[in-house]
Amino acid sequence: MSRRRYKTGQKQAGASPGTITYVGREVAHATRISRIEYNAAEYHIDGSGRLSNCRIPAASTPFVTWIDVDGIHQPQVIEALGQQFRLHPLLLEDVVNTEQKPKSEAYDDGVLFVTLKMLHCHNRISEIDAEHISFVLGPNYLISFQEERTSDIFTPVLDRIKASAGKTRRNGPDYLLYALMDLIVDRYFEVLDFIGNQLDKLEDRIVQVQVGGNGVQQPTLTELYSLKRELTYTRRMVWPLRDMIGALIRDEHPLIQPGTLPYLRDLYDHVTQVIETIDSYRELIPGLMDVYLSTMSNRMNSVMKTLTIFSAIFMPLTFIAGIYGMNFDNMPELKTPNGYFITLGVMAATAAGLIIYFRRRGWM
Amino acid sequence: MSRRRYKTGQKQAGASPGTITYVGREVAHATRISRIEYNAAEYHIDGSGRLSNCRIPAASTPFVTWIDVDGIHQPQVIEALGQQFRLHPLLLEDVVNTEQKPKSEAYDDGVLFVTLKMLHCHNRISEIDAEHISFVLGPNYLISFQEERTSDIFTPVLDRIKASAGKTRRNGPDYLLYALMDLIVDRYFEVLDFIGNQLDKLEDRIVQVQVGGNGVQQPTLTELYSLKRELTYTRRMVWPLRDMIGALIRDEHPLIQPGTLPYLRDLYDHVTQVIETIDSYRELIPGLMDVYLSTMSNRMNSVMKTLTIFSAIFMPLTFIAGIYGMNFDNMPELKTPNGYFITLGVMAATAAGLIIYFRRRGWM
Amino acid sequence: MSRRRYKTGQKQAGASPGTITYVGREVAHATRISRIEYNAAEYHIDGSGRLSNCRIPAASTPFVTWIDVDGIHQPQVIEALGQQFRLHPLLLEDVVNTEQKPKSEAYDDGVLFVTLKMLHCHNRISEIDAEHISFVLGPNYLISFQEERTSDIFTPVLDRIKASAGKTRRNGPDYLLYALMDLIVDRYFEVLDFIGNQLDKLEDRIVQVQVGGNGVQQPTLTELYSLKRELTYTRRMVWPLRDMIGALIRDEHPLIQPGTLPYLRDLYDHVTQVIETIDSYRELIPGLMDVYLSTMSNRMNSVMKTLTIFSAIFMPLTFIAGIYGMNFDNMPELKTPNGYFITLGVMAATAAGLIIYFRRRGWM
Amino acid sequence: MSRRRYKTGQKQAGASPGTITYVGREVAHATRISRIEYNAAEYHIDGSGRLSNCRIPAASTPFVTWIDVDGIHQPQVIEALGQQFRLHPLLLEDVVNTEQKPKSEAYDDGVLFVTLKMLHCHNRISEIDAEHISFVLGPNYLISFQEERTSDIFTPVLDRIKASAGKTRRNGPDYLLYALMDLIVDRYFEVLDFIGNQLDKLEDRIVQVQVGGNGVQQPTLTELYSLKRELTYTRRMVWPLRDMIGALIRDEHPLIQPGTLPYLRDLYDHVTQVIETIDSYRELIPGLMDVYLSTMSNRMNSVMKTLTIFSAIFMPLTFIAGIYGMNFDNMPELKTPNGYFITLGVMAATAAGLIIYFRRRGWM
Amino acid sequence: MSRRRYKTGQKQAGASPGTITYVGREVAHATRISRIEYNAAEYHIDGSGRLSNCRIPAASTPFVTWIDVDGIHQPQVIEALGQQFRLHPLLLEDVVNTEQKPKSEAYDDGVLFVTLKMLHCHNRISEIDAEHISFVLGPNYLISFQEERTSDIFTPVLDRIKASAGKTRRNGPDYLLYALMDLIVDRYFEVLDFIGNQLDKLEDRIVQVQVGGNGVQQPTLTELYSLKRELTYTRRMVWPLRDMIGALIRDEHPLIQPGTLPYLRDLYDHVTQVIETIDSYRELIPGLMDVYLSTMSNRMNSVMKTLTIFSAIFMPLTFIAGIYGMNFDNMPELKTPNGYFITLGVMAATAAGLIIYFRRRGWM
Ligand SMILES: [Mg+2]
Ligand SMILES: [Mg+2]
Ligand SMILES: [Mg+2]
Ligand SMILES: [Mg+2]
Ligand SMILES: [Mg+2]
Ligand SMILES: [Mg+2]
Ligand SMILES: [Mg+2]
Ligand SMILES: [Mg+2]
Ligand SMILES: [Mg+2]
Ligand SMILES: [Mg+2]
Ligand SMILES: [Mg+2]
Ligand SMILES: [Mg+2]
Ligand SMILES: [Mg+2]
Ligand SMILES: [Mg+2]
Ligand SMILES: [Mg+2]
Ligand SMILES: [Mg+2]
Ligand SMILES: [Mg+2]
Ligand SMILES: [Mg+2]
Ligand SMILES: [Mg+2]
Ligand SMILES: [Mg+2]
Ligand SMILES: [Mg+2]
Ligand SMILES: [Mg+2]
Ligand SMILES: [Mg+2]
Ligand SMILES: [Mg+2]
Ligand SMILES: [Mg+2]
Ligand SMILES: [Mg+2]
Ligand SMILES: [Mg+2]
Ligand SMILES: [Mg+2]
Ligand SMILES: [Mg+2]
Ligand SMILES: [Mg+2]
Ligand SMILES: [Mg+2]
Repeated sequence: MSRRRYKTGQKQAGASPGTITYVGREVAHATRISRIEYNAAEYHIDGSGRLSNCRIPAASTPFVTWIDVDGIHQPQVIEALGQQFRLHPLLLEDVVNTEQKPKSEAYDDGVLFVTLKMLHCHNRISEIDAEHISFVLGPNYLISFQEERTSDIFTPVLDRIKASAGKTRRNGPDYLLYALMDLIVDRYFEVLDFIGNQLDKLEDRIVQVQVGGNGVQQPTLTELYSLKRELTYTRRMVWPLRDMIGALIRDEHPLIQPGTLPYLRDLYDHVTQVIETIDSYRELIPGLMDVYLSTMSNRMNSVMKTLTIFSAIFMPLTFIAGIYGMNFDNMPELKTPNGYFITLGVMAATAAGLIIYFRRRGWM
Repeated sequence: MSRRRYKTGQKQAGASPGTITYVGREVAHATRISRIEYNAAEYHIDGSGRLSNCRIPAASTPFVTWIDVDGIHQPQVIEALGQQFRLHPLLLEDVVNTEQKPKSEAYDDGVLFVTLKMLHCHNRISEIDAEHISFVLGPNYLISFQEERTSDIFTPVLDRIKASAGKTRRNGPDYLLYALMDLIVDRYFEVLDFIGNQLDKLEDRIVQVQVGGNGVQQPTLTELYSLKRELTYTRRMVWPLRDMIGALIRDEHPLIQPGTLPYLRDLYDHVTQVIETIDSYRELIPGLMDVYLSTMSNRMNSVMKTLTIFSAIFMPLTFIAGIYGMNFDNMPELKTPNGYFITLGVMAATAAGLIIYFRRRGWM
Repeated sequence: MSRRRYKTGQKQAGASPGTITYVGREVAHATRISRIEYNAAEYHIDGSGRLSNCRIPAASTPFVTWIDVDGIHQPQVIEALGQQFRLHPLLLEDVVNTEQKPKSEAYDDGVLFVTLKMLHCHNRISEIDAEHISFVLGPNYLISFQEERTSDIFTPVLDRIKASAGKTRRNGPDYLLYALMDLIVDRYFEVLDFIGNQLDKLEDRIVQVQVGGNGVQQPTLTELYSLKRELTYTRRMVWPLRDMIGALIRDEHPLIQPGTLPYLRDLYDHVTQVIETIDSYRELIPGLMDVYLSTMSNRMNSVMKTLTIFSAIFMPLTFIAGIYGMNFDNMPELKTPNGYFITLGVMAATAAGLIIYFRRRGWM
Repeated sequence: MSRRRYKTGQKQAGASPGTITYVGREVAHATRISRIEYNAAEYHIDGSGRLSNCRIPAASTPFVTWIDVDGIHQPQVIEALGQQFRLHPLLLEDVVNTEQKPKSEAYDDGVLFVTLKMLHCHNRISEIDAEHISFVLGPNYLISFQEERTSDIFTPVLDRIKASAGKTRRNGPDYLLYALMDLIVDRYFEVLDFIGNQLDKLEDRIVQVQVGGNGVQQPTLTELYSLKRELTYTRRMVWPLRDMIGALIRDEHPLIQPGTLPYLRDLYDHVTQVIETIDSYRELIPGLMDVYLSTMSNRMNSVMKTLTIFSAIFMPLTFIAGIYGMNFDNMPELKTPNGYFITLGVMAATAAGLIIYFRRRGWM
Repeated sequence: MSRRRYKTGQKQAGASPGTITYVGREVAHATRISRIEYNAAEYHIDGSGRLSNCRIPAASTPFVTWIDVDGIHQPQVIEALGQQFRLHPLLLEDVVNTEQKPKSEAYDDGVLFVTLKMLHCHNRISEIDAEHISFVLGPNYLISFQEERTSDIFTPVLDRIKASAGKTRRNGPDYLLYALMDLIVDRYFEVLDFIGNQLDKLEDRIVQVQVGGNGVQQPTLTELYSLKRELTYTRRMVWPLRDMIGALIRDEHPLIQPGTLPYLRDLYDHVTQVIETIDSYRELIPGLMDVYLSTMSNRMNSVMKTLTIFSAIFMPLTFIAGIYGMNFDNMPELKTPNGYFITLGVMAATAAGLIIYFRRRGWM
């Protein structure tokens, strides 16, 4: 289940441009397709998954049509859908290219293509995993493509459509596109909380030790490094989204209604907040590393002081003992009745003097 | 009372856009609403807190109306006020979203929305805390929203209104907006002085030690790291304000009178000064860290020198003592009458020689 | 075969501008020239290598002409070709200047000059090597120049031309230019995988050690440094390509058909992905260095603890033994029958006490 | 005399905008005002200091009027002058706000306000001190304001006015403004030489030690840190000046004559040179820190080697002596006549072997 | 001969703007002036050095006139020439100001002023030295100014003029300006090769040591630091040149013929390559520093291990010897006939056990 580190997952070099090759993880299930029609008055859900039902709706149809494709690992399905909606081969290539970064692109025939990343946290392995999501916005329809990960991430929006004739039901497919993107961006905050939580714990652990705790686990710096790697990864997945939404707001694409713009601006705000939060986390890590390394230094200092104190106290004492362990014939001190006790006294005084000296230097 | 570290405080993912959910701290009091009307000639204060008094004033009213809402934790109050002033749901969402960064936004119906952060220092825990403040500027009214923190941060401006028919009384609601923002920005300088004070103390403490002081407290680097975290936090709260005020100056919003522009430019200057001061503080911290770490190194050096000197002096002496402690039958030196004293002399000479050697190397 | 590190390979200072001097590696083979004509209906390949066949095709010719020059080390060949196609001397200088960075330049007579780098990996020496590639796009022809490295890097495109009347055959020389550039950019992903693989291995090796492995090979940091150098080199080779393709898209050169633009945008995307991947790798390296250095510190700590424990335990014991090794006449303990066994007991107790103390401090 | 570190010196939060409050250092003297009138033919100096003589000169007056205000610590003087010249309250606030960064601002009534910093070096405390200078340029007059520091920094320009009918005398008040700014910028180079001198000395001291000197003074890193702080401070004082002069050149303010523009461009060049010099100094400091820290490391290495050599040589010897100091009844070696001498020989051989080994490892 | 480090070399503060004061090194020779006239048909060289021959050539003259001034240290010569060509005092100030950074400036009377730096390497002191070069381009003439360093750096261009009626002879003074700038930029590559060579050697030296070499020379880090300083210096000298040439290309100055633009673009390319090469070198230095410092760490580790192994092996052995060196009356082991040999055996076993233990930990 783990994310591939440092793999670009690009298809065979030399393949013809526009070749639709899935490069993501292996998926066992078949692609699931559902088709929802709705307006303010009513809604119909066609969960049959029949591809033949998915065609460009007539301009006169009174519904907004939403086609949700869950799974992009079957090139033939994507290609068939592409033909029925007359989509450009490069658009389809981007739909299945799980490494494609977030972007929006207006195609000549008026459709708007949008792609971005859903982020999932894996608690067990402390990793963040990006799911490749794409949208094709037409005059009265929206197609959404999800990389196979969980059963369906768009359920909350679908539930709102079913629940009441609210904002989504009263607006066009551009608002639906916004609502789905908003759902994805809202999930980024959960990822941020997940990361913030890890940072919080690491900070506590490192600072605790600094203040006088009993032992840092060895792998702390490795965890800090992993955290940085996850932040770098998350930033790379989210960063282009800001420019993309900014472009949607500025470019006045005919399919984006003016009433949807304030909502896109709100989305822009939230993405900006996500990026700034990531950046402020990233900025703290080198400082934490320095705190950790200074802990190491402090500890080494403490070890060395212990060694030095032991050596400095016992070496002179052992030397004195060594002197009176010599076997010279003529050593007057040895004959005196109190020589031994005086020597013990001298040793005690030497030790006391050294202990006072080290106390004064603040080593004990 | 402590600020939540690394929490985004976002509401439930999947909620409908425009849902008004307070995500800040828990607050016990009810929202306080006051309504002030003034012009150059007179002023009236309605502190009754009745929501029903708060409506869009007639275009012909000769007063500037200021509605100050102290507390944003009761969604129903915010929503009611929003309906009476016909405010966009996304605007209200930003009013209660305490994590919304500073920005200004012009809505289609002519009102101007402005949000920014008041900063408070908590001396005890050395933390800076942001209070979420929003303004809605209409043709002849201003609504201000404060996150519940202290009783009222806008008192100085209210006092000026009461005190005399000064600049505030002679100008429109745009000048009032400026005056309140100016009040907030003035408080940033107090926060900077608070931080500068901490930096000053840390610098003294670290540099003192360098020069020859007796002992750095262990937690110093942790404090330095906390200071950096507070600076990063403050910067993030203040930074977008500059662009926002810049946009207000440039965009020539019809509700901003030309006579107010020099005042906004002055505000822009001050915010720029705040940001540059923060940046210059931030820039100094890595250097301080290096000074601290070199202190560690110096100290280790000093410990090691002590150890080496003790070892190097006593090891040869103990070895000499060891030689004459051997029990060989035939050791001529042991028989000589002065052997012991000669040996003591050799030991003294060895010690003296080593001491001179270490003096020359600058270790003693 | 190794790339020259830190050589600019510039020709003699003071040479007249426009002098065609090859500054790349020595090449033994002669330049190979092939000439391909194709349209949707048919194709002809002239592999004779005769330079005289290479001239500007008549405007009325129903074919796209592709002249592929494999080898740029023979100035006289490049110059002859330049004269037949009336190319500017500075253009020819850039064709042979293997240090020229990627760029595109429109010449006054309407031809478009494009130059970029093919990247090759050398597994044995873990080095990346840039091959200098240039294109001259005319109204109905394309000339491609390859630095001599492998027999022919453009084979996949040639194979597609031969295989079927696909997109390449149905489009003009601008699409051919795109297809060849796409081939080169596709190979960048292989280089990224090569680098990512090295990074992966180094990360595992360094992190493994951290967690408790048995020994890092000394050269690890050197390898990390080499990796950084390769990344810096690759970035420098690829980075200008993004702006260059961006300019091709924006500038609406008359030789670039509108239908080719989506393909160039796709290429732009891929180059952006390459650059961002390089940058995210580069960003991780300092953190890895820190992990490695903290491993060093940890290990030193562990060595020092061992030393300190041994010294602190044996020094007092040896001192006690030293005391009872003294030769004073009057040492009452020596006479007692159990003195020796009591002393051994005291020694054991001392050692046990110290071991408990070190256990408590977490050193054992 | 020392500059306040990390103080924003802002006036009371909540004060009405445009309140003129001096926040700089305490000054004992009264404000000195002088008034100079000149043209190509003649000049008059009115040093009476009477404020009543300072009014907007008539448009028909054939002189350029220069009013120099030395001291900005008396709000009533500044306010009176402000009223006589009809200056905006915010302009006056900026005149007395010693923390205002360099900027120029065109006011609606046609006057141009310019503020920047004079820099002074304090040799004794190695600190740089900024003096707040402001100018108000009118159609035929210039007012200059100096923070009280030295008697008068503008003497050289006044001397040139008195000396001859040179460029200053033949030109308008805009050239006078330039001449005074040029004087200030010329002094920046003295500050740079002062800093460069310190950097030079520190570099020599640190590098000398590296090469084999006898001892770095402890405070070196502290000095390096101070130098960085001064550079950061200087940069902050000078940096906005470049943009300000750039704006003066670009904006074609009606009071700036076209003939003055080349002079402003020259000034722009010099400010750019100042900033680039500061930046190149700043860039060198981390490298110097690394050199210093590696010196520490080298020294520690040298200490440790000494310790290790002593320990490794004397421990085996002392052990051998210890063996033959044992009191076993049956130790055959002790009885042999040459045992002692053989043992001494073995000891000498052991020591020699170890010395050769350490020589080979390059430790001796 | 050594370059002044950290000196701005600015003239006296307070001097009148436009005062021509040479601030470079002292020069003994007199200024050398030569005057070359050429067109496609013929050329004349006037090496008399008479200043009176140097005047603005008549518009009708069929020649390009090139006046080369070798030496800028005689203000009176520069001033006289300036008067004969009616050059602005600020232009002349820039000609003699050896600290002026590269720039181009169009003066009102139509002449174009260009200044840049020639770089020289001093092999002996490993320093790079900048020579200040300026050009004044008029309608049919070019004046070049060289700071006195070597006899003449423009010889190759002069030789090409003499050699044949090539590109230089067939074009105007703008092409001559280009040719001379190209000559200077070509020399930058030699400087880069000089620096690259030093980097190469340092890298080899540092990496060699890492892998297992025998000893780094102490001064290595100092050399690395010097290299960084030279790179910073070189970058500062070259960096503004790119923008300057970019401006020449964009600004369409009437004296720059359209046919010269491709040549300037080529020059722009080369300067860009120089800057990017410098930047890629600069980027590698911190990594090299880290490799060097880790070498220090590794070595310290190795020293400490040696110490620890010696101590840990001999301390227990010496302790055992100490026990049997005690003088207790009742020590049964001493009486046994094999006690001594058993003790020796125990010692050997202890040593062997410890050696095995250290082998297992990878310390031996
Ligand atoms: Mg391809
Ligand atoms: Mg994916
Ligand atoms: Mg992925
Ligand atoms: Mg949202
Ligand atoms: Mg919002
Ligand atoms: Mg939502
Ligand atoms: Mg908050
Ligand atoms: Mg808040
Ligand atoms: Mg203010
Ligand atoms: Mg102001
Ligand atoms: Mg700054
Ligand atoms: Mg650091
Ligand atoms: Mg050349
Ligand atoms: Mg190359
Ligand atoms: Mg190459
Ligand atoms: Mg491709
Ligand atoms: Mg694509
Ligand atoms: Mg990135
Ligand atoms: Mg580092
Ligand atoms: Mg105020
Ligand atoms: Mg100040
Ligand atoms: Mg000041
Ligand atoms: Mg000047
Ligand atoms: Mg100048
Ligand atoms: Mg560093
Ligand atoms: Mg001057
Ligand atoms: Mg110089
Ligand atoms: Mg020079
Ligand atoms: Mg060239
Ligand atoms: Mg070229
Ligand atoms: Mg680069």
